[in-house]
Amino acid sequence: MKKLINDPRAVVDESLEGFGLAHADLLDVHANPAYVIRKGAPVAGKVALVSGGGSGHEPLHAGFVGHGMLDAAVPGAVFTSPTPEQIIPATEAVDSGAGVVHIVKNYTGDVLNFETAAELSQAEGISVRTVLVDDDVAVQDSLYTAGRRGVGGTVLVEKIAGAAAVRGDMLDAVTGVAESVARNVRTMGVALSGCTVPHSGVPSFELADDEIEIGIGIHGEPGRHRIPMEGADGITSRLLEPVVEDLGLGSGERALLFVNGMGGTPLSELYIVYRRAARLLEEKGITVERSLVGNYVTSLEMQGCSISVLRLDDELVDLWDAPVHTAALRWGM
Amino acid sequence: MKKLINDPRAVVDESLEGFGLAHADLLDVHANPAYVIRKGAPVAGKVALVSGGGSGHEPLHAGFVGHGMLDAAVPGAVFTSPTPEQIIPATEAVDSGAGVVHIVKNYTGDVLNFETAAELSQAEGISVRTVLVDDDVAVQDSLYTAGRRGVGGTVLVEKIAGAAAVRGDMLDAVTGVAESVARNVRTMGVALSGCTVPHSGVPSFELADDEIEIGIGIHGEPGRHRIPMEGADGITSRLLEPVVEDLGLGSGERALLFVNGMGGTPLSELYIVYRRAARLLEEKGITVERSLVGNYVTSLEMQGCSISVLRLDDELVDLWDAPVHTAALRWGM
Repeated sequence: MKKLINDPRAVVDESLEGFGLAHADLLDVHANPAYVIRKGAPVAGKVALVSGGGSGHEPLHAGFVGHGMLDAAVPGAVFTSPTPEQIIPATEAVDSGAGVVHIVKNYTGDVLNFETAAELSQAEGISVRTVLVDDDVAVQDSLYTAGRRGVGGTVLVEKIAGAAAVRGDMLDAVTGVAESVARNVRTMGVALSGCTVPHSGVPSFELADDEIEIGIGIHGEPGRHRIPMEGADGITSRLLEPVVEDLGLGSGERALLFVNGMGGTPLSELYIVYRRAARLLEEKGITVERSLVGNYVTSLEMQGCSISVLRLDDELVDLWDAPVHTAALRWGM
Repeated sequence: MKKLINDPRAVVDESLEGFGLAHADLLDVHANPAYVIRKGAPVAGKVALVSGGGSGHEPLHAGFVGHGMLDAAVPGAVFTSPTPEQIIPATEAVDSGAGVVHIVKNYTGDVLNFETAAELSQAEGISVRTVLVDDDVAVQDSLYTAGRRGVGGTVLVEKIAGAAAVRGDMLDAVTGVAESVARNVRTMGVALSGCTVPHSGVPSFELADDEIEIGIGIHGEPGRHRIPMEGADGITSRLLEPVVEDLGLGSGERALLFVNGMGGTPLSELYIVYRRAARLLEEKGITVERSLVGNYVTSLEMQGCSISVLRLDDELVDLWDAPVHTAALRWGM
């Protein structure tokens, strides 16, 4: 295992410290318990958004803390759920009285810990709503989940719901927007390699030189099936077709196409995948109106990518285009 | 070799096609010869900036085409200089009559081909100035260069000179700003792994499980020396100290700190490096006023990073902060 780290047990804390130093204009990093909150929180009158999950998926979630997206992010240990002891103070720190939406990827530990935190925060008088993201069409249940996993689509939920909160939507309305995005986004991924959790020191799984894993999650957990290596165009079809089918997206509809790198794949390859996915959607009569290409929901240094498709309407386009200023996603300001 | 590609010989063309589809609002991709120009070029009255180099370093350079940065980028084959046959039409397409600055990383092939293109463009009546970037302190001459290599600092030259052009600076003034940035930035890198050029199919070099290469370039060419693997803090010192020393940066001065990923290293590790580098600069009495952390000048899927330090003054801060809208760097709009 070669990594740019010091003590494997200090990876999350040291990385967060660097993150806080690099983005001191945007956010504050709290240590013990670890959470990240935007500058100026709580924002008077605004519904707050909190998300979190295991570390190792950077820039998710802390990279999306700032204006127009998350008010707080709660990082667990690598590939490990954050605890209620982190989620509760983060929730309290960002609540302006307008309430807090928890955006939770559908993993058993995350769901339980956010649920506990929500109950305890509500007992303290904070209104909390929870939105589950389970956009991965690859598998029904997995090592980490009952039901589908939450993966790349989470970024889109956070961006669009964040814009709704800035627009002035009340708690139930922001929750409704987040749920609408979660309902209208689907994702599927592929791994060309495994990844190594720092404190374990061994790869999560091994793939032969001529094998890839279709339907991979973001923790190196198993996918749908292992197949021989093939060209990018073929792989793109294998990811895109189930996504479009599951979403029921048809001719005449509008979409955002998101090609997400798993961390170790060159950007140039992501654009090769984007090219084929965009062409396939075009052939189906689906108009790609917005795009996102890059490493946003990663699995450490894993090589591979995921493709997400979000069904768009005028409102979602407006909210997507609204200004955002975070470490990892920024426009309009 | 496992890559998300189709025909290894089509990698650059297919990637550019996808890039053009994803960013059709920002730029146009021209094929045969390959170059990328911003929408609306030429911009009336504005000095134009053109850069280019071998592919495999994405998002450099095409990812920096747009308002406030480059007017055109000219991608060669992977790790191969672009030709005058590409550079000349790109230069012609963006010249408004106010002249064109070629920003050239100091590699022998790039320098020769941009020189030829500049001469031929000038013969056609276009005023061209050339700024060489040679920020790598690691080696004096290399496999690819006479003198120092141009690496991560190139991004800072392109951003700041691009802002000077938007400000309305004339040709010699924009050239002067670019030269000033080039003079005031230094970089050094480390590789934890090699990378594989698609059409060769074999790694550029091999590192043992316990070895790293200090002073690496961006083509998998040799660095200063190979040493046993060590912790991130030690590696950071080995990169930062020569950079600061070569720059002659001292107590009371101001800096931009740029930690650049080589493509295959998780963002979380780049922040661990940033943390240590920021602390080391702080100990030296140097104020880090601006930061950049991410994969901006890569070597395909190489694991590793580089550290760049730019000496700042009020003017450079203002130009750095000025709005930019490109695929890979965006703020203020």
